Amino acid sequence: MRKLFQDDLHNLGDQLSDIAALVTEAMEKAYRSFETADVQLAEEVIAADARIDSKQNDLDEKAIELLALQGPVASDLRLVVGALRMSTSLERMGDLARHIAQLTRLRYPDPVAPAPLVTVYRDMAAKDVEIARKLVELMDTRELGLVSEIFALNEQINELHAGIFTTIAKPEWDASPASTADATLASRFFERFGDHGVSVARKVQYLVTGEWEAKPVA
Amino acid sequence: MRKLFQDDLHNLGDQLSDIAALVTEAMEKAYRSFETADVQLAEEVIAADARIDSKQNDLDEKAIELLALQGPVASDLRLVVGALRMSTSLERMGDLARHIAQLTRLRYPDPVAPAPLVTVYRDMAAKDVEIARKLVELMDTRELGLVSEIFALNEQINELHAGIFTTIAKPEWDASPASTADATLASRFFERFGDHGVSVARKVQYLVTGEWEAKPVA
Repeated sequence: MRKLFQDDLHNLGDQLSDIAALVTEAMEKAYRSFETADVQLAEEVIAADARIDSKQNDLDEKAIELLALQGPVASDLRLVVGALRMSTSLERMGDLARHIAQLTRLRYPDPVAPAPLVTVYRDMAAKDVEIARKLVELMDTRELGLVSEIFALNEQINELHAGIFTTIAKPEWDASPASTADATLASRFFERFGDHGVSVARKVQYLVTGEWEAKPVA
Repeated sequence: MRKLFQDDLHNLGDQLSDIAALVTEAMEKAYRSFETADVQLAEEVIAADARIDSKQNDLDEKAIELLALQGPVASDLRLVVGALRMSTSLERMGDLARHIAQLTRLRYPDPVAPAPLVTVYRDMAAKDVEIARKLVELMDTRELGLVSEIFALNEQINELHAGIFTTIAKPEWDASPASTADATLASRFFERFGDHGVSVARKVQYLVTGEWEAKPVA
């Protein structure tokens, strides 16, 4: 019985890692569609999001079943509750990748990004994808060094996000108001993706160490 | 024992309702600070958000304790897990009210809203506050008629949000790019607040009826 339960907990971890891998792929493709105005790829990302949602749902049902059948306590209980929370954050990361793809589709055949911001978004997206990849690795290895790497990447994304508002406020900014609005939303989506990544990383850290790091170290 | 447990479940419900009341007040004040460029009120909202976070934390700890000590099953278990999820959504609603207040502070002494959008934000915020108020009532009364009212309010907010992008794209739009960016973010914050409200309402509905309404009726 106990052994079976441990297997179940492992399975939850594997399910989380699978979802994180799908989220990584979603953001990688969403950004590619965004940069190249590839509406077909954008549609692919939008359609694939349902798979992430469904896997989240499976995981949540499995976690609730575990709670009901095994009545875990102490660290096992924290792990199951933590899995429920992490799945919510991962699902939101999938939504944000979908939002990026939806902006691509909305503006097609024009690209969403005004020219002066193309490289900034490229950086933000690369860091988002890196965060998602590190989450997969973190779940697979529980190597806590990855947590501070994720925090650092998120800080860099926050700086890029702030920089976008500085660029928009410059006298030489000449994008249309509609394009400015899209640029703002895109930046917000890339930035939120990183925040959720940090939230997942902090939960893994807490589950491994039992200590809640109130302030992420940058 | 059983009786005590039912009391505990009731307490969880009361805690949720308390948080929803704080969230209602936060959005009401955040919007007032936003419309009148009242930086002092904005600071009050920003400071008060810590209280919402701390109450969410208390509720989560209580819910986890319940899971550990009582090992609830079936509908009781769904209720405790549902409470954990609702507290997360409510906490995000508090964050969004804080973001509105932060925009107020950032642009002070200027108001955030460009003149053509003032009445639109007023409508959005009034509907947000109405949603939060109805959540409190829903938690206190479990009157499911409120759920479809919340769905309808959120649909109206979504339309107002879409309308803001139409306004921004009009030739007569003459706000600065920085102001356009702020206007976009503000609209997004008001819109997300409603989404989280719907998410909480759907969970209450599910817990009361045992049926998950996949598509909210507008």
